[in-house]
Amino acid sequence: MASLVYVLNGPNLNLLGTREPDVYGSDTLADIEKLCRAAAAKHGLEVVFRQTNVEGELVNWLQEARTKAAGVLLNAGAYTHTSVAILDAIRATTMPVIEVHLSNPFAREQFRHHSFVSPAAKGLICGFGAHSYVLAIDALAGVLRTAKA
Amino acid sequence: MASLVYVLNGPNLNLLGTREPDVYGSDTLADIEKLCRAAAAKHGLEVVFRQTNVEGELVNWLQEARTKAAGVLLNAGAYTHTSVAILDAIRATTMPVIEVHLSNPFAREQFRHHSFVSPAAKGLICGFGAHSYVLAIDALAGVLRTAKA
Amino acid sequence: MASLVYVLNGPNLNLLGTREPDVYGSDTLADIEKLCRAAAAKHGLEVVFRQTNVEGELVNWLQEARTKAAGVLLNAGAYTHTSVAILDAIRATTMPVIEVHLSNPFAREQFRHHSFVSPAAKGLICGFGAHSYVLAIDALAGVLRTAKA
Amino acid sequence: MASLVYVLNGPNLNLLGTREPDVYGSDTLADIEKLCRAAAAKHGLEVVFRQTNVEGELVNWLQEARTKAAGVLLNAGAYTHTSVAILDAIRATTMPVIEVHLSNPFAREQFRHHSFVSPAAKGLICGFGAHSYVLAIDALAGVLRTAKA
Amino acid sequence: MASLVYVLNGPNLNLLGTREPDVYGSDTLADIEKLCRAAAAKHGLEVVFRQTNVEGELVNWLQEARTKAAGVLLNAGAYTHTSVAILDAIRATTMPVIEVHLSNPFAREQFRHHSFVSPAAKGLICGFGAHSYVLAIDALAGVLRTAKA
Amino acid sequence: MASLVYVLNGPNLNLLGTREPDVYGSDTLADIEKLCRAAAAKHGLEVVFRQTNVEGELVNWLQEARTKAAGVLLNAGAYTHTSVAILDAIRATTMPVIEVHLSNPFAREQFRHHSFVSPAAKGLICGFGAHSYVLAIDALAGVLRTAKA
Amino acid sequence: MASLVYVLNGPNLNLLGTREPDVYGSDTLADIEKLCRAAAAKHGLEVVFRQTNVEGELVNWLQEARTKAAGVLLNAGAYTHTSVAILDAIRATTMPVIEVHLSNPFAREQFRHHSFVSPAAKGLICGFGAHSYVLAIDALAGVLRTAKA
Amino acid sequence: MASLVYVLNGPNLNLLGTREPDVYGSDTLADIEKLCRAAAAKHGLEVVFRQTNVEGELVNWLQEARTKAAGVLLNAGAYTHTSVAILDAIRATTMPVIEVHLSNPFAREQFRHHSFVSPAAKGLICGFGAHSYVLAIDALAGVLRTAKA
Amino acid sequence: MASLVYVLNGPNLNLLGTREPDVYGSDTLADIEKLCRAAAAKHGLEVVFRQTNVEGELVNWLQEARTKAAGVLLNAGAYTHTSVAILDAIRATTMPVIEVHLSNPFAREQFRHHSFVSPAAKGLICGFGAHSYVLAIDALAGVLRTAKA
Amino acid sequence: MASLVYVLNGPNLNLLGTREPDVYGSDTLADIEKLCRAAAAKHGLEVVFRQTNVEGELVNWLQEARTKAAGVLLNAGAYTHTSVAILDAIRATTMPVIEVHLSNPFAREQFRHHSFVSPAAKGLICGFGAHSYVLAIDALAGVLRTAKA
Amino acid sequence: MASLVYVLNGPNLNLLGTREPDVYGSDTLADIEKLCRAAAAKHGLEVVFRQTNVEGELVNWLQEARTKAAGVLLNAGAYTHTSVAILDAIRATTMPVIEVHLSNPFAREQFRHHSFVSPAAKGLICGFGAHSYVLAIDALAGVLRTAKA
Amino acid sequence: MASLVYVLNGPNLNLLGTREPDVYGSDTLADIEKLCRAAAAKHGLEVVFRQTNVEGELVNWLQEARTKAAGVLLNAGAYTHTSVAILDAIRATTMPVIEVHLSNPFAREQFRHHSFVSPAAKGLICGFGAHSYVLAIDALAGVLRTAKA
Repeated sequence: MASLVYVLNGPNLNLLGTREPDVYGSDTLADIEKLCRAAAAKHGLEVVFRQTNVEGELVNWLQEARTKAAGVLLNAGAYTHTSVAILDAIRATTMPVIEVHLSNPFAREQFRHHSFVSPAAKGLICGFGAHSYVLAIDALAGVLRTAKA
Repeated sequence: MASLVYVLNGPNLNLLGTREPDVYGSDTLADIEKLCRAAAAKHGLEVVFRQTNVEGELVNWLQEARTKAAGVLLNAGAYTHTSVAILDAIRATTMPVIEVHLSNPFAREQFRHHSFVSPAAKGLICGFGAHSYVLAIDALAGVLRTAKA
Repeated sequence: MASLVYVLNGPNLNLLGTREPDVYGSDTLADIEKLCRAAAAKHGLEVVFRQTNVEGELVNWLQEARTKAAGVLLNAGAYTHTSVAILDAIRATTMPVIEVHLSNPFAREQFRHHSFVSPAAKGLICGFGAHSYVLAIDALAGVLRTAKA
Repeated sequence: MASLVYVLNGPNLNLLGTREPDVYGSDTLADIEKLCRAAAAKHGLEVVFRQTNVEGELVNWLQEARTKAAGVLLNAGAYTHTSVAILDAIRATTMPVIEVHLSNPFAREQFRHHSFVSPAAKGLICGFGAHSYVLAIDALAGVLRTAKA
Repeated sequence: MASLVYVLNGPNLNLLGTREPDVYGSDTLADIEKLCRAAAAKHGLEVVFRQTNVEGELVNWLQEARTKAAGVLLNAGAYTHTSVAILDAIRATTMPVIEVHLSNPFAREQFRHHSFVSPAAKGLICGFGAHSYVLAIDALAGVLRTAKA
Repeated sequence: MASLVYVLNGPNLNLLGTREPDVYGSDTLADIEKLCRAAAAKHGLEVVFRQTNVEGELVNWLQEARTKAAGVLLNAGAYTHTSVAILDAIRATTMPVIEVHLSNPFAREQFRHHSFVSPAAKGLICGFGAHSYVLAIDALAGVLRTAKA
Repeated sequence: MASLVYVLNGPNLNLLGTREPDVYGSDTLADIEKLCRAAAAKHGLEVVFRQTNVEGELVNWLQEARTKAAGVLLNAGAYTHTSVAILDAIRATTMPVIEVHLSNPFAREQFRHHSFVSPAAKGLICGFGAHSYVLAIDALAGVLRTAKA
Repeated sequence: MASLVYVLNGPNLNLLGTREPDVYGSDTLADIEKLCRAAAAKHGLEVVFRQTNVEGELVNWLQEARTKAAGVLLNAGAYTHTSVAILDAIRATTMPVIEVHLSNPFAREQFRHHSFVSPAAKGLICGFGAHSYVLAIDALAGVLRTAKA
Repeated sequence: MASLVYVLNGPNLNLLGTREPDVYGSDTLADIEKLCRAAAAKHGLEVVFRQTNVEGELVNWLQEARTKAAGVLLNAGAYTHTSVAILDAIRATTMPVIEVHLSNPFAREQFRHHSFVSPAAKGLICGFGAHSYVLAIDALAGVLRTAKA
Repeated sequence: MASLVYVLNGPNLNLLGTREPDVYGSDTLADIEKLCRAAAAKHGLEVVFRQTNVEGELVNWLQEARTKAAGVLLNAGAYTHTSVAILDAIRATTMPVIEVHLSNPFAREQFRHHSFVSPAAKGLICGFGAHSYVLAIDALAGVLRTAKA
Repeated sequence: MASLVYVLNGPNLNLLGTREPDVYGSDTLADIEKLCRAAAAKHGLEVVFRQTNVEGELVNWLQEARTKAAGVLLNAGAYTHTSVAILDAIRATTMPVIEVHLSNPFAREQFRHHSFVSPAAKGLICGFGAHSYVLAIDALAGVLRTAKA
Repeated sequence: MASLVYVLNGPNLNLLGTREPDVYGSDTLADIEKLCRAAAAKHGLEVVFRQTNVEGELVNWLQEARTKAAGVLLNAGAYTHTSVAILDAIRATTMPVIEVHLSNPFAREQFRHHSFVSPAAKGLICGFGAHSYVLAIDALAGVLRTAKA
């Protein structure tokens, strides 16, 4: 049975493709889901792909992933910058969590330069639009291979 | 068919009339809803009036308003001061969003002086109790008239 | 005899209509005076309308208003962000003072996010261009009605 | 009929016993519930015991407690450090709310040293693992006895 | 022979009962000493109870406690917020030190929100007036029982 | 011919006796002028006593005092906290300037704790209501006696 | 029997006349004591005059003064800038405490611009060398006369 | 007809030559006026030269310059560091405004390192005493030549 | 002819494999060079791979890359956190620059959380050891493909 | 023999004319060198003109200038904002050093508002593009004339 | 008669050898006293060696040293970071005071990076355990030799 | 063969003896080299003595010292306060590195109070002019003896 990768998306990411396309690109979240599934399949991984606008739901899903997933891609959206609860949920896991962003938050407002996710993440990939997710799947696959070895 | 105005209320506003009346006045949220409907009617507008204690629900409703409403009155309550997610939801809209508060947050604790809503709002009306909402309906109607012209 | 409302305008507001129209709109201060007089008349109020570039003159007029006016609309312009003297002049009054701005200062430079007027004002209306003044007249009329009741 | 005590637990506390045991101890939340019920029974109090990962749900429950409970034990977890909404919900109550933590947040990261709960709480007990809850039940019983006297 | 608990009190606590009773309650320090002795006796503990206005004397007593006491209750009063020397004295011990306050410092001035004692303390109990001490004795007894086990 | 002392008063001090009497006392500025003249007469000094709401007028008067006065009492009111221009005007003089306040600014809002006048003043007297001025006249007379000796 | 005034001096003030005379003047503490006694005698007041290098001793003396003195002159020296314990001791009294300094701390290093004494003091007199004490005696006498009236 | 250059001087600059000559040099403002007229004449420019201690007057003159002058030299003196009103007045113009200082503010107190004029000025020349003005006239002439070209 | 990718490494990266292997892994810089060449070859790209301890040399190479390279991978090491010169060198280019780090700087000391490179970079990949470089080559290839399209 | 003026240019200034022309203008560094030589010749001065991307090389050249040059024009580019080493090198000289910038750094990012060069420089000229250098040569010539007189 | 060196030790240094040996080493204070006496004897110096936990006692001893000692070694322990009183006591002396620490405070908590002793000390030696004292005796001897010469 | 000690000197130290002698003393760097060789010889150590103005060169030499030296004396001059690269180079070594300064940086400007070298150094010696180096050689010899034992 294929290992599971949870790809968890936070607030407003469901609007992708329609919202501020100059910042976030024209891909929709459904497009990204497809890219993730394809990329994961190359590494023999299966994807659980979800989005929510509720901070606590992201916490719920990270807790669920603890026992079901081999790793997590997390684009916590705006909660990246404000959520200690998500930080704690990551700290409570032992699997690798990779932080992903479509845009480069460091090229945006000052309050987007701080992330509560980063200190607890295995790594961070940002700035490549939808391609950030594909790279993160590859990164995660690499981490999982190394861990097995 | 009348244009819709979403009047969205955040955490603890359901307690209005019973909670710290010296700060928030004695009107209940139901009273305010009535005032809003009456004020909107004068401008040929119809009101969708809601309250929630959940940050993500406010995000959901702002997203819903994107396609259904001509404009939004937003009293995000305590989330005003902490929610980047709501800021992003407003940024994702093109219709006017007006920030409303019953009390004057600048006459209260330091942490209430910063608003994540303000920079993305069309304008701000605060300090007039329930009347703040009526003024905001009038303000929104003015903005909509100007936009049409 | 009709009650008086002082509408006091601070530095550079005499340039309205010619100065940075994308920020402040194309109405002149004379246009705004007319709007104020019309709005006030609906509430049986009469308007004293003034502008100055001198901080101390605004203090003088606020002191004059203490004994002559039922309320004040104050757009202190740049002094909003720097004048403790104006704060003290408002604190020395018992009538309602309403802070008004044409633009939304929270969508501008960081140093415009702090106001020495706000903590002492009854309420704040900003972001609606010349219409901010009309709404503030309505707001003031409401406050005066309530105070009488 | 026995008076009710609400014991409300925030995000990730459902993981207790499995998550970072060197920080949070090996008791599970179910163990703590039992300890609370036993301690409360000694004071003739009954316990409503809940956990959620959603900030707004904690607000909901604090509002519910306003009319049903004699007092509240609140371990808001990570929301302790970020939630103005919870602060407001506490401010909206008149019954005593006691802040509880398993660990000593002041011996941890800097951002855990600030609490939005503390300024509105009757008192604070932290650092004694599951025993913190038992002490807080005793503390609350004492406060309720004094209030009656 | 019974184990000793040092209960050490810092500056101005000798004035209890006469000083700002709305903040600190009407119990005198002698009342608190009696409560402590009674609470300790229940756990088979004996109390050494002292007060001083001199920072260095608190350091002396903490050093003395290192070799004589099973644990310490420390209400360092104002030195809580300024004394690195006391922090170092606690760090130099291996027995549990519990921070106690009558009032809730987080509901007071900003400079009382920082404690040099907290990071080195086993736990913190505050806000319950004289009862804070009784709870702290119970807490300490629990810690000592656990350590033995 | 008697030496001149300039007693210069800043914004809103003309309202004394009517403005926030719990903060500033019930003496009027005319009362204070009389007290100053009487106190000065005892030291063979004559008083020039003025008030203005305009920052630049205080600068003008300080410049005038450079060539006409033996010393200055300066209560710059709100400009104390914001005026570098007044600081420079004092720095440009060689005679003693004494800072006076009716109230104790350090017991008020944070922004009143900083004074641009203090670093350039000979000394500071505050908190004694109208009596602050009398003490300052005595202080100035002492300074002038010492300078002569 | 004459009313008592406590004149309390903090660390290093015993070195007056020998220590940094360009900052503190050439008067010794004994000279200042004489000036104080003479000034007090004019108002029918008697002086208790003390100096210590120990923070806690200043706290002891302020506590003693609570029951014995009509008022206090406090030059807490360096503890002015660091002692919350002294602030609390002043807060615990009801008599007037006047802050005195020989030099003008605002013309010195930044860390001397903050005083824990000032917010709790009746008033502040500084910058006039030994004469500061005489003025403070006069100020205190005035305060006591007013309080009696 | 020659183009006009407004040379506007702020508070205390009328004291030049007598005030702190080690900081500001021994040239008087009249000397500087002559230097400016001579330098301007070389470029076929005529000078309007003014000084005021009143912030609002500088605003008035900048507004006047908008319609009459080809460019402005502005030495706003102390208002450089505190005046948002002057910043706004500059922003309201389209002609070049050049900031001039006699001394080098960056070699002086920290609060002189921030300028509200600089961000809106075309350029800045400081540190060369009276010669700063001559260089600024040359600079302005260059800017005007370029603009014409 | 194959397009060139410059892979530029900053200070101390020549020590890789021997320096703090728990932070930076056991791969040497030569190992990483090989990985980069292999990854680049898959995309038809050729690699110029360099390391220096001199900030200005990184600036030199970035300038060289402007005219020779299709894109740059930049691991500026410690200069990431301090070099405005490198930021300016990146700003001076129009090709994509991708920031790479072996470790996750956000999980390390506070001063490593700020990057002068990030705001000017196309994107950022960090935390995956040597694999970070491979992912960055893939990311760059993607960016170049998109730019061509 | 003509006196020497060193004109030293820091990182990325070799790219002038090609790099961000809207910020830095279209003149190349060679153009500026020519302008400097021409301007210097008018004052009987000869120019040594250099550019480097290496901070330490600027230090080397400033040290060389100590014994060879009559004065220095320094455009330290990005090192302006970060280099204490350059500040020290200037402090080690006794000849005048004039800070020059093409653009107005105060109209750019916040981190460009602080200069380590300014406090040690004789004066500062910025914002006039290549003409800044010509003005600085004139300024330096004036300083040298005055020093001789 | 041999010159005296005062070696003054602050709070908790009497615990040396038993307290946190990984931070402070295993030498006792008595061991250090012996090392100091031996090192001093080589330079013909005699040692007065003391320890106290009371801040004011360190002030007393520094004052005593003024008239009796040729120089002072001061390890003020925790008071290093909080005591303005000790700073003032050092400022009041003219002999050299050398700051000594066993550990390297800059490798410890942030609040240990600031020292009130350092700005007034002749020099600082830290990080070499007990050997720090020996080096400081040698350093002091060198300073005294130079002063004589 | 004697063990090697690298004595590495940063920017502007080559100017010693000529640059600001009141801050740095009159010894030249050659004098200091001789003192170091003599002091090292007493401990059977040999010295490699170098100076550079280039930050990266200091990094190069620290890397070279890793394999060749028994220990390092580092006076990084101005780079002390700004160089993370040097910090990393020290962290990459296992031998002891001792920070040396001629002057006492804590008695100088604020920005010299922070050192990136200190947290990674074994210890720090500063304030004794050229003698600081001799003491540091002795300190290093002691550290090396202890390490061998």
